[in-house]
Amino acid sequence: MKRSIEDTSVVFIGAGNLATNLAKALYHRGFRIVQIYSRTKESAQNLAQMVEAEYTDELPAITEDAQLYIVSLKDTALVQLLPEFTSGKSDALWVHTSGSIPMNVWKGRVERYGVFYPMQTFSKLREVDFKEIPIFIESHSEEDTLFLRDIALVLSERVYEVNSEQRKNLHLAAVFVCNFTNHMYVLAAELLRKYRLPFEVMLPLIDETARKVHKLEPCDAQTGPAVRYDENIIDSHLQMLADEPEMQELYRLISKSIHRQVEAGI
Amino acid sequence: MKRSIEDTSVVFIGAGNLATNLAKALYHRGFRIVQIYSRTKESAQNLAQMVEAEYTDELPAITEDAQLYIVSLKDTALVQLLPEFTSGKSDALWVHTSGSIPMNVWKGRVERYGVFYPMQTFSKLREVDFKEIPIFIESHSEEDTLFLRDIALVLSERVYEVNSEQRKNLHLAAVFVCNFTNHMYVLAAELLRKYRLPFEVMLPLIDETARKVHKLEPCDAQTGPAVRYDENIIDSHLQMLADEPEMQELYRLISKSIHRQVEAGI
Repeated sequence: MKRSIEDTSVVFIGAGNLATNLAKALYHRGFRIVQIYSRTKESAQNLAQMVEAEYTDELPAITEDAQLYIVSLKDTALVQLLPEFTSGKSDALWVHTSGSIPMNVWKGRVERYGVFYPMQTFSKLREVDFKEIPIFIESHSEEDTLFLRDIALVLSERVYEVNSEQRKNLHLAAVFVCNFTNHMYVLAAELLRKYRLPFEVMLPLIDETARKVHKLEPCDAQTGPAVRYDENIIDSHLQMLADEPEMQELYRLISKSIHRQVEAGI
Repeated sequence: MKRSIEDTSVVFIGAGNLATNLAKALYHRGFRIVQIYSRTKESAQNLAQMVEAEYTDELPAITEDAQLYIVSLKDTALVQLLPEFTSGKSDALWVHTSGSIPMNVWKGRVERYGVFYPMQTFSKLREVDFKEIPIFIESHSEEDTLFLRDIALVLSERVYEVNSEQRKNLHLAAVFVCNFTNHMYVLAAELLRKYRLPFEVMLPLIDETARKVHKLEPCDAQTGPAVRYDENIIDSHLQMLADEPEMQELYRLISKSIHRQVEAGI
């Protein structure tokens, strides 16, 4: 019987937002998740239950005979714990899922290694559709690159091979379009709460702002007081933020940056 | 024959992004747009053609016998030109479409007045679906409030009555969720261009970030290095922005603000 790629036995090291979503996606596509490690027993157990795997909260108890180890830890933990969790498992393929850690972090520790970075904002309680998530892969061996590509293609239609430098840059750009954007929503929600206005009135605007850049360059999609350089409104908004110095400073800086973009574009 | 609300004769003063979208939406719903004024003849003519109206670029030539005047000018222009364009037309209903200008701007100039603020990001070349756009109305007379509500309900399912203070706040919140968010996209596009990565790889992340806040509170939707307070990544990102001091400062401030939110939430 020909073995399919889904027969690959996978261990997850880490059980956070990304690991949870990725493990579930692989599991639903028929992959064999054999074990989950997390520093927190409860997290390991929760995820293990969802994907019918064993679990452990002890590094030495990580199984040695899996074919693929997917490490999804906070970057500092990954670097710190790497010597310990890789020890004795040098035949398998090792990948991490971080946007920012270079592939070379594995060098000298294991033979076969790479990166498997699905670029999305993951929350444990929210199911995402992996099909549309871009997955960025990297490996130093051609064979393992093909292997990672095949796995990624089971999950998503958008698989790209990028180097560590590009991936780092993608991650930085992702922080802007996702985390910083979400923070703009957070600040707006804070403002609206003061005037007892419901955040949901913002949703059509949020949606259209996102939809617009599917069709227009972001710089061509810009509207509002800063791009028109409507100083009256800008000043009045800054006054309204007088008792929120941090938000005021952000308003000032972002408006200045928008205005600079316009000037640069002319 | 009973006259329907669509028989209302409407004049637009202003032919910018908002006026263009609103005039077209009213026209398509059967309203009679009788005239467009714009300081720029070409803009007036363009919009007039789209909605089968007359046009002028001279304030004294604005027709005196319309029933509804919708003023959609830059805030400073509105305030400055108001005495001139209202002169001799005191029987009609006057509304402006600005988020930031209080309703009282009309006081002493005309008898019947109010505000008709559709909160959306409008670009001339992009058609929007008015049905989902929240429209915020205000008038000092009950009768005109009802009239404005009826007009708004022809266009949208989301019509709210708010006072000038609330509207100003909605507008400020809108700047955050729309203009500032779009600027995050602009900055990301700039970063990606440097590494010759296509902006479109960001779209699934942008969409999910917007979709998430339909289901989660914005503060609960947050992910990324700042909310985890992953100093390694934050420092590495700041280093990557060393030759972009403005972007670096924004990165620092927004990350600090995200972190403050987390601490406040605990």
